[in-house]
Amino acid sequence: MARKTGSHSEITGPRIRAAAQHLFARHGYAAVSMRQIAAEVGVQAGALYLYTPDKQSLLADLMRDHLESLLAATAALPPQPSPADRLAQFARFHIGYHIERPDAVFIAYMELRNLEPAQFAEIEALRRRYEDVLEDILRAGHRAGQFSIPDSKLATMALIAMLTGVTNWYREGGRLRRHDVEAIYADMALKSVGALAQP
Amino acid sequence: MARKTGSHSEITGPRIRAAAQHLFARHGYAAVSMRQIAAEVGVQAGALYLYTPDKQSLLADLMRDHLESLLAATAALPPQPSPADRLAQFARFHIGYHIERPDAVFIAYMELRNLEPAQFAEIEALRRRYEDVLEDILRAGHRAGQFSIPDSKLATMALIAMLTGVTNWYREGGRLRRHDVEAIYADMALKSVGALAQP
Repeated sequence: MARKTGSHSEITGPRIRAAAQHLFARHGYAAVSMRQIAAEVGVQAGALYLYTPDKQSLLADLMRDHLESLLAATAALPPQPSPADRLAQFARFHIGYHIERPDAVFIAYMELRNLEPAQFAEIEALRRRYEDVLEDILRAGHRAGQFSIPDSKLATMALIAMLTGVTNWYREGGRLRRHDVEAIYADMALKSVGALAQP
Repeated sequence: MARKTGSHSEITGPRIRAAAQHLFARHGYAAVSMRQIAAEVGVQAGALYLYTPDKQSLLADLMRDHLESLLAATAALPPQPSPADRLAQFARFHIGYHIERPDAVFIAYMELRNLEPAQFAEIEALRRRYEDVLEDILRAGHRAGQFSIPDSKLATMALIAMLTGVTNWYREGGRLRRHDVEAIYADMALKSVGALAQP
């Protein structure tokens, strides 16, 4: 990592967030000091406080950015003709979006324990909004008689865990291409809610 | 936490491991010192080294114990007449076993990054043996024409992630009883591999 002393104009939010994200994902939030983050960016620790009030704010900022970007990307998905098509699209999208951001995913799931109550409530509300996107699809399919789902909330949690799990083992250049992984998971997701597999 | 100074006879492995597990799960491995673990047990830091050579060994011990107990419990499951029954049994067992051990699960999945190469290889081999238990069931069902699985390794990873995800949100006394959660997930697991739902 570059460790040059930067001018104030170099102390940009994106650089600080990138350094914090990298260090939190590698060592865990509690083990990383503001001094280490400053060193990674290449500034004095005091200069960091021009940008962020404390490490807790930095953690909440990373999670908020991650979830807001995720929600924006979800909202921009093209409309689909059926609940099954929407579910297949969601499954492929979720995998593709998350495997490109392993550090953000790791932090968003694992550092919830280190959020203070107000930040936890805010981040949980954003996460809930994302879960609602999937639950809406499942309910629509169930209402239309195309899915068979005993509990839409449970099915939502089950599918999100299944799809996010790809980030634990997927490596670019591995045995399976990303497109194949997305297709196989989309197929399992559809079958798991009783929808017919897409051709 | 009790912080009395203990005699040597009190420095038992289980107490040290329980303290380390609690602290690692709460704060993350990298943020916890041997001194903190000793304080939680109620002994001097030096006394810890009578039991374990270092913090890394303690982490590897926790993961090894968790996975070896898991494998032993899996091996003790009663035989089932069909691959579908085996899969339903595995799904229920996996959920039940893991929701009773949230700290061990959290550490086993999240602190892999902090294992040194030799320990990582050992723990990964144990984890792989557990994954093989499920993959064997899926292959047996596929061979018998009862499951439809394009890639048994991927289906294994997908199902384990789905089932383990319950530990992220399940709380005793919540909206759903554990038995109901296990039944709904077992049903989704069966459907996801193209097996008919169990009655």
